[in-house]
Amino acid sequence: MSDVQSALDLIGRGAEEIIKREDLEARLRLGRPLRIKAGFDPTAPDLHLGHTVLLNKMRQFQDLGHQVIFLIGDFTGMIGDPTGKNVTRKPLTRDDVEANARTYADQVFKVLDRARTELRFNSEWFGQMSAADMVRLAAQHTVARMLERDDFARRYAAQQSIAIHEFLYPLVQGYDSVALKADVELGGTDQKFNLLMGRGLQEHHGQAPQIVLTMPLLEGLDGVNKMSKSLGNYIGIDEPAIDIVTKTMKVGDDLMWRWIDLLSFDISVAEVAVLRRDIDSGALNPRDLKLRLARELAARFQGAAEAERAVAGWSAVVRGEGDTTSLPLAEIAVPAEGLRIAALLTAAGLTPSNSEASRKLKESAVRIDGEVVSDPQRVVPSGFEGVLQIGKRTFARVRLIGA
Amino acid sequence: MSDVQSALDLIGRGAEEIIKREDLEARLRLGRPLRIKAGFDPTAPDLHLGHTVLLNKMRQFQDLGHQVIFLIGDFTGMIGDPTGKNVTRKPLTRDDVEANARTYADQVFKVLDRARTELRFNSEWFGQMSAADMVRLAAQHTVARMLERDDFARRYAAQQSIAIHEFLYPLVQGYDSVALKADVELGGTDQKFNLLMGRGLQEHHGQAPQIVLTMPLLEGLDGVNKMSKSLGNYIGIDEPAIDIVTKTMKVGDDLMWRWIDLLSFDISVAEVAVLRRDIDSGALNPRDLKLRLARELAARFQGAAEAERAVAGWSAVVRGEGDTTSLPLAEIAVPAEGLRIAALLTAAGLTPSNSEASRKLKESAVRIDGEVVSDPQRVVPSGFEGVLQIGKRTFARVRLIGA
Repeated sequence: MSDVQSALDLIGRGAEEIIKREDLEARLRLGRPLRIKAGFDPTAPDLHLGHTVLLNKMRQFQDLGHQVIFLIGDFTGMIGDPTGKNVTRKPLTRDDVEANARTYADQVFKVLDRARTELRFNSEWFGQMSAADMVRLAAQHTVARMLERDDFARRYAAQQSIAIHEFLYPLVQGYDSVALKADVELGGTDQKFNLLMGRGLQEHHGQAPQIVLTMPLLEGLDGVNKMSKSLGNYIGIDEPAIDIVTKTMKVGDDLMWRWIDLLSFDISVAEVAVLRRDIDSGALNPRDLKLRLARELAARFQGAAEAERAVAGWSAVVRGEGDTTSLPLAEIAVPAEGLRIAALLTAAGLTPSNSEASRKLKESAVRIDGEVVSDPQRVVPSGFEGVLQIGKRTFARVRLIGA
Repeated sequence: MSDVQSALDLIGRGAEEIIKREDLEARLRLGRPLRIKAGFDPTAPDLHLGHTVLLNKMRQFQDLGHQVIFLIGDFTGMIGDPTGKNVTRKPLTRDDVEANARTYADQVFKVLDRARTELRFNSEWFGQMSAADMVRLAAQHTVARMLERDDFARRYAAQQSIAIHEFLYPLVQGYDSVALKADVELGGTDQKFNLLMGRGLQEHHGQAPQIVLTMPLLEGLDGVNKMSKSLGNYIGIDEPAIDIVTKTMKVGDDLMWRWIDLLSFDISVAEVAVLRRDIDSGALNPRDLKLRLARELAARFQGAAEAERAVAGWSAVVRGEGDTTSLPLAEIAVPAEGLRIAALLTAAGLTPSNSEASRKLKESAVRIDGEVVSDPQRVVPSGFEGVLQIGKRTFARVRLIGA
């Protein structure tokens, strides 16, 4: 297998679409480091695993020796929403943009290789552009083509207003590829139209059109919806290792394979085939593979030591292997006389309400240090230290501090 | 009748639409000179009477004490056609723009009052604008509203491409009104959509929205089509007085009233009513009124003396009153032995071809110095000086110069 072929296999892993695959192959054969562009909003980021799908692909390019351009689209961010309709899109200042860039850097270099990352801002070239340049850019596309974009087509058909500057933003993104001489642009599937913009504009400027690679949107913990903060089905990359492990272990078996494809560096495509066979034959428990993925993710974002402690703690509680002292300890303030169990479960964040806690008690789903508790009148005394657990996979190690 | 009312009457004369008439009245009542804007292409002008309809309205505002802004849209002219599809729309240079402005000045000050005319170029403000400013401007309108413009709607429905920058140009024109703080904008009926742009943008910038006044397109000599160079149904303002008179005298009686409304300063609205009655009663020959209009127009563009000579010459030939020596003399080079009559008529520009000349001869429609000639073999000798005539109203005074 040639180097180019193995590079293509790695790049293609998990990708939704590559336009065009033969162009990518030809570009890889040039033997020089390619310029891999991905654009990011200049608003304050708070990344979750869903965002890392793209970062992982960028990292794979870096591991193959290519140069990644992490582009922050601050030009449009500093304009804000000129229609004044969207109050949450206030114009950002230069200071905002720089602060947000630092927040990005703190997070993305948990995945990306600093040495092969170029951090750029598109205000660098758009800040120099005149109104006449923008008119010339606008001439490069037609209204009809722009209205073909899914969301524009939908809004136009529904008679929802589209301000004219919204037609300029895809062109801005496309021109960024010209300014950066991008070889490849990466983005989510929802970005496909904008990614394709760059191709036409590059050709117009005498450049070879970039290859477009789209990555799918990662399904969240529910296995159905796209991972998102507002749906609460996410794992934030700044969460404690134990939460990364606990949440990952709740992922269904089908979704696990998808997460491995999109999130694991350690488990290769070749190995996946072997693992699938082992699970089908019963030689491997899916739980063990999931634990391996959980450990990899926790280690990536919180370091190897934290990841090991989290996995050990999880195993102690769920599998009864080893002791639970490696789990982080949450201190909960309670009255001197202690707290009734339902209220405690809620205070520990294991149930959303006392009534839900009571239901769990009735179902005999609640355990204290491994022992089933069903008496709703049970009071846990101050000074208690141990593990509260609901079902198998939801738990917390707590210490009760009397007032 | 108040001053404002008589001003409104004059301004309203011949106007297609005033948006809104009550706003115009209120603005006139302010008692200050209003700022009257009209925009012109920066391409080399070669004006005909059709163009002067707008100039006349500008002049009427000046005569009422208002300030006219003659705006040359050089910002877009210097961009040219960025799609590269229209090769005739090459980007103009600053030198081109200035040369064209001088050509405009040579022509328009035959109508406008220099003292109350401000000549401006929109590159003055758009040349300073950044790409971000253009994005903000684009945000001020929606795609749907823009597609309501007649020609855009037609092209979109017919799947003819509309480049996105074409949506920016009406906004550019609208913003010009903001920059100029225009009180009123004048334009042809075909400009109505663009004229209305300024109103919304002015309001957005805290200005009272301009009043929009549209003037109809002048029908050409054929009485049917809009006057235009390509249709050949025009009177250029640089034409000799005799041509202005001759062509005006060919206008039909119905069209004459329309021309009076749109082109005459001398014949007032009040007088028109009287004249109509006189013509209906037979007290006035329409030809005499037409001659008065012809004299006014010839005098406007070629001076009073030339106009008088032309009217006198026209009367001598057509009405047989006075002699024809006031007509301009065209020298025509002929062979020593003279020229056959058909060829001479064509050489003098009275017929488009020798066969057409022969046809006119057969119809006995050709006269030399008032005498009918029907012999196609008739040779006019070199040294001849006199009037060639076809029908009643087409004629030329010529001298034949032998080789």
